[in-house]
Amino acid sequence: MNYKMIFYIMGQILKVVALCMLLPILVGFIYHEHHVLISFAIPMLITLVIAFAVTIKKPKNNAVFSMEGFVSVAASWITMSAIGALPFVISGEIPNYFDALFETVSGFTTTGATIMGDVESMSRSCLFWRAFTHWLGGMGVLMFVLAIMSSNDSRTMHMMRAECAGPNVGRLVSKSNMTARILYIIYISLTLLETGFLLLGGVPLYDAIIHSCSSAGTGGFSIWNNSIAHYNSLYVEMVIAVFIILFGVNFNLYYYIFIKKYALAYKNEEVRTYFCIIIAATAIITVNILHTCDNVGEALRHSFFMVASTITSAGFSNTDTGQWPVFSQALLLVLMFIGSCAGSTGGGMKVSRIMIIVKTGIRELKYIVSPRAVATVKMDGKPVENDVVRGASNYLILFIMLMAVSILLVCLDKFSIEESASAVITCMNNIGFGVGRFSPSGNLGGLNSFSKVVLCFDMLLGRLEIYPLIMLFAARKSA
Amino acid sequence: MNYKMIFYIMGQILKVVALCMLLPILVGFIYHEHHVLISFAIPMLITLVIAFAVTIKKPKNNAVFSMEGFVSVAASWITMSAIGALPFVISGEIPNYFDALFETVSGFTTTGATIMGDVESMSRSCLFWRAFTHWLGGMGVLMFVLAIMSSNDSRTMHMMRAECAGPNVGRLVSKSNMTARILYIIYISLTLLETGFLLLGGVPLYDAIIHSCSSAGTGGFSIWNNSIAHYNSLYVEMVIAVFIILFGVNFNLYYYIFIKKYALAYKNEEVRTYFCIIIAATAIITVNILHTCDNVGEALRHSFFMVASTITSAGFSNTDTGQWPVFSQALLLVLMFIGSCAGSTGGGMKVSRIMIIVKTGIRELKYIVSPRAVATVKMDGKPVENDVVRGASNYLILFIMLMAVSILLVCLDKFSIEESASAVITCMNNIGFGVGRFSPSGNLGGLNSFSKVVLCFDMLLGRLEIYPLIMLFAARKSA
Repeated sequence: MNYKMIFYIMGQILKVVALCMLLPILVGFIYHEHHVLISFAIPMLITLVIAFAVTIKKPKNNAVFSMEGFVSVAASWITMSAIGALPFVISGEIPNYFDALFETVSGFTTTGATIMGDVESMSRSCLFWRAFTHWLGGMGVLMFVLAIMSSNDSRTMHMMRAECAGPNVGRLVSKSNMTARILYIIYISLTLLETGFLLLGGVPLYDAIIHSCSSAGTGGFSIWNNSIAHYNSLYVEMVIAVFIILFGVNFNLYYYIFIKKYALAYKNEEVRTYFCIIIAATAIITVNILHTCDNVGEALRHSFFMVASTITSAGFSNTDTGQWPVFSQALLLVLMFIGSCAGSTGGGMKVSRIMIIVKTGIRELKYIVSPRAVATVKMDGKPVENDVVRGASNYLILFIMLMAVSILLVCLDKFSIEESASAVITCMNNIGFGVGRFSPSGNLGGLNSFSKVVLCFDMLLGRLEIYPLIMLFAARKSA
Repeated sequence: MNYKMIFYIMGQILKVVALCMLLPILVGFIYHEHHVLISFAIPMLITLVIAFAVTIKKPKNNAVFSMEGFVSVAASWITMSAIGALPFVISGEIPNYFDALFETVSGFTTTGATIMGDVESMSRSCLFWRAFTHWLGGMGVLMFVLAIMSSNDSRTMHMMRAECAGPNVGRLVSKSNMTARILYIIYISLTLLETGFLLLGGVPLYDAIIHSCSSAGTGGFSIWNNSIAHYNSLYVEMVIAVFIILFGVNFNLYYYIFIKKYALAYKNEEVRTYFCIIIAATAIITVNILHTCDNVGEALRHSFFMVASTITSAGFSNTDTGQWPVFSQALLLVLMFIGSCAGSTGGGMKVSRIMIIVKTGIRELKYIVSPRAVATVKMDGKPVENDVVRGASNYLILFIMLMAVSILLVCLDKFSIEESASAVITCMNNIGFGVGRFSPSGNLGGLNSFSKVVLCFDMLLGRLEIYPLIMLFAARKSA
């Protein structure tokens, strides 16, 4: 394994993270929060010095294979979380380091689960940093490094694959740094568009930026204790619901639309299924919760917003789903696992992976009936490679195994099985809220430090899709 | 599809079920319960007439392929449950037919979940019939038909495979009716042995037979409201715990021991893993529950009995696990899914299937690290066929998909998500008790008829391992 190259990549990533800390410093200047400036300046300067020292010389052997890609991404995400947590601790706004680490991992992985009972007590700089970790983690920080890198190394594909979500990742254009650049341009444009729409609805600029960053990463951190319900505005809710759904779409689609290849965009079976699931779930829940609402409009509003928030893993809330019929709550739980599209900023298992798995199940039934018939799994009209089919099934198996182990470990804490399971499910799927004590109105502050570390690990497993983290720990053995 | 042959097989199976009703009639005579005799006699006679009418002529085309095997097993199990429920309704001991059907399906599938709040109020004949359905369902009624059949048709293998549990089924000897005969001889011997041991402990003959039948099928029906705890005897508990563990072992092992091929018996990786899991789980739970018990001996007694009862899916109880630390409860939940060995009377996913799945997960990780290395999944030192590996993974996927749908449907009832999930999990794994309202001390009587039908279906899916039932509904299409 090429350790020198791994450190070099990590250095580049840390540079980006450190420079991003300039933004909360700017916020601090604007709002005269001089006491928190130093909390960001110290970690930023230390990180910059280390990062520049590591990257001063590019290694001669710049070979980056699958293994190096996975390991550098996993190591970078852990390091940037450890550093990103420092401002919270130094400023004293989250005095316990484990709590701060949990909050930062929850930010970068776009989970949005919080240990804070009262977010409104935090400074504007820290609230901005919280939301900005969502934005940075959503598209991926390595992707950002690739986007600003001038090199045109075809092997950087391995790194992209390690950070990108979904069963298989394709390049939009032959050069992977160009692909990263296109993706980031789309990402920034959509974020600015949402900010604009929120401003039109009378939301203050600061609030609009925060909630745009939060929805872009489909994270879910808000600056209000009662989340989006604070604005009590149908317009704001609908803008956010529509944008989180858009951020949950495979970004390749926007590229195809941009280059006017509408046929290619329409052919995408995953995106069509994603929209069908959203429409069906919204309709079913609307009917199911009708008797708890004043009228059909209110039922539709709550249903649509919560479906969008759950399937994209954003984790915003505009109502207390704990009051819903159990069937609707269970349906939301299913949506959590399905998640959004591959190649989006959303979480969960990803629609395409679920589609491949369901199709594999159907194929198995066909095979049992007539073993001689050769049935293939198809997506977008084309047969899916056997490796991808096997990969999707095995991803589910590993996901379930790791989930079971995590639930067992969190059960060592003082909560019930269903609460522990709920915390693990919400973290592994990067949602941000669960059921029972950890429902949208609750927070995960009551867990002990060991549980928090397990959940941090689960959030990273969910965001980086298992393999990079496991490679990091298996690396020593195979090196 | 050869419908004539399917009806012929169903007729044979129904004959066996009808004749078995002679046993509760005998019990009724002995205990002078003359009022219930007619409740068994009527369904028995009607069934016999129909069964003999159907089997009066063997179809000329006696070809039985995979499809016919699956469909006849599924149809027979549904029919025999529908008939087996009649005595409960006619005698008025379970007046609602859906309740009686649930109880009978729970019996035949060896689940042991009950809708009865007070079993002690039932007649001895009905209690015997309840326990005897466990015994009959444990090894399989089609297997019984094969054992008494004189024909030596190699194609009957397809039928055996449909009723037998586990990822792959091997014949012990070249003739499948001889294999069935050997298995039933072992089954009867072990049941008699257990009855003998219980008699030695001072248990009355009737009680001993009931609990032997119940443990042979790893079912869990008892004749006492507080199950095995009624006897308050360490000896009785240990006899039952040891025997349910033995009934959870692959029966091939006993055959190998019988023909003195000890090496073959020892080489069985699944059985060794099964024992290791039991020992490890018992040790962990003993330590975890120590503070809730008077001394180490009591902790060990409760831990060992509940681990045995859970992993074999027997579902007896000698303590209220609801008082245990959450971690131990969660560990029991994991054991429920693992289940016992393939080719045993136990439920769950089966140890060998879990082993193949875990090994497949590990292989996937190896593959991600170095895609060129050809890693195979091995069992008993030999590579497992790709079909079996794929089958095990896909079984898990189908199991989870069906579980999710069932939970959603049961959530339409009035219980919480965790209670609904608990009821579905306990039924699909054929355990018999869940958590919360459906813990060992509770019963499933409060569910509505729709939920009961869904759970009946789940119990059959678990016992027949999904495929036969799905084939039954898919049959029309492909016929």
